[in-house]
Amino acid sequence: MANRKKLYEGKAKILFKGPRPGTLVQYFKDDATAFNNEKRGVITGKGVLNNTISEYMMTRLTEIGIATHFIERLNMREQLIKEVEIIPIEVVVRNIAAGQICKRLGLDEGQPLPRSLVEYYYKADKLGDPLISDEHVTAFGWASHQELEEIVAMTLRVNDFLLGIFLGIGVRLIDFKLEFGRLFTDDNVQIVLADEISPDNCRLWDIKTNEKLDKDRFRRDLGGEREAYQDIARRLGVLPEMGQ
Amino acid sequence: MANRKKLYEGKAKILFKGPRPGTLVQYFKDDATAFNNEKRGVITGKGVLNNTISEYMMTRLTEIGIATHFIERLNMREQLIKEVEIIPIEVVVRNIAAGQICKRLGLDEGQPLPRSLVEYYYKADKLGDPLISDEHVTAFGWASHQELEEIVAMTLRVNDFLLGIFLGIGVRLIDFKLEFGRLFTDDNVQIVLADEISPDNCRLWDIKTNEKLDKDRFRRDLGGEREAYQDIARRLGVLPEMGQ
Repeated sequence: MANRKKLYEGKAKILFKGPRPGTLVQYFKDDATAFNNEKRGVITGKGVLNNTISEYMMTRLTEIGIATHFIERLNMREQLIKEVEIIPIEVVVRNIAAGQICKRLGLDEGQPLPRSLVEYYYKADKLGDPLISDEHVTAFGWASHQELEEIVAMTLRVNDFLLGIFLGIGVRLIDFKLEFGRLFTDDNVQIVLADEISPDNCRLWDIKTNEKLDKDRFRRDLGGEREAYQDIARRLGVLPEMGQ
Repeated sequence: MANRKKLYEGKAKILFKGPRPGTLVQYFKDDATAFNNEKRGVITGKGVLNNTISEYMMTRLTEIGIATHFIERLNMREQLIKEVEIIPIEVVVRNIAAGQICKRLGLDEGQPLPRSLVEYYYKADKLGDPLISDEHVTAFGWASHQELEEIVAMTLRVNDFLLGIFLGIGVRLIDFKLEFGRLFTDDNVQIVLADEISPDNCRLWDIKTNEKLDKDRFRRDLGGEREAYQDIARRLGVLPEMGQ
């Protein structure tokens, strides 16, 4: 990691300049934050687990034709990705009510939603990532109508596929967050899935016990965060030998 | 007013059973509330002013082909309206940034928006009327896709027309809130504009001085609420002789 140029440090990841033009190295930290940074902690080994879980998900998604920023995993904590222009929108899919939507709309946690809901949040830490609608996205030019249509279509495919993957390992996919970016090539711009897919940004409940196997263990002081993330990796068949 | 059946009492209006089936009497109170009922007060004469201002607006809108619930003004504080099934959505149009959107998205008050924004809020006092998107509206069945399309089309027409009316009297229409209802006839359902259009639910700034001529005077303790509402009524040519 020495001498590499750090381009951006987020709450759970660092982006470094990559070895070739148009590439970045995405480094997964063990840092955990919640409630817009009000709660901070460390889940030892989380970075290693999220790196492999996200590698698995991005690879499987590529196989079904979802374009992603992922190129390859480099080592325990790093993956090589394509440099994209991040669209400043968090796209959240909710299959079951949990988290902030419960308080917002007066729903009970665990209540199935009438159908899967796609929500947008404006990526702005200092504003607390506020809920927005397609009106705000397009009016402020954060994404065009056409881009948003593509993002929604990709998001719904990702939801179907992830619901299937998790069902196959006995886990209910309650909700998750995606980010997208613009990949610029010679004379083209392509929308690709960016960021990561891991228990940091999915709510995952064991299908039999409803036990939480995701970052809510940290948010709600339930303990066993590392074991939950390990459980997901193990069920997916990608539990790394924990070198560090 | 004696012996009439009160059907609903809201923050600024009361609905009574009307003289004929399918009609209601809408009574305009002087009560003013803000910030989801946290602030309460009385603006003497407000009910009389809003009754006539809303009569004027609903009548002009009917003339350009916007269906409304309005039938006729009955007296200083009451109007006869058609009974409709209220759709539990507040539709807000914003032409200029003001109010809660400023804090939410980090905008300056008075900043023109890139284009007019249509926002939806779920009518639920105990939840604080939370912002929602078309996803929530249709998923929870508060309105169908088709109804929402019709509502948006009507809303955009209302915005154009009101922008014009207010421009004509030297007032900038910053934003406003509409409500819609389902009017059931023999074998038909029609979406109609309901509620009221008045300085209670519009932000109106004098075009030269930017003086606020709306409920923000009450919300922000600026004083002169009654005079501001009177000013709007006077400019529209409908200032009533204040009997009470």
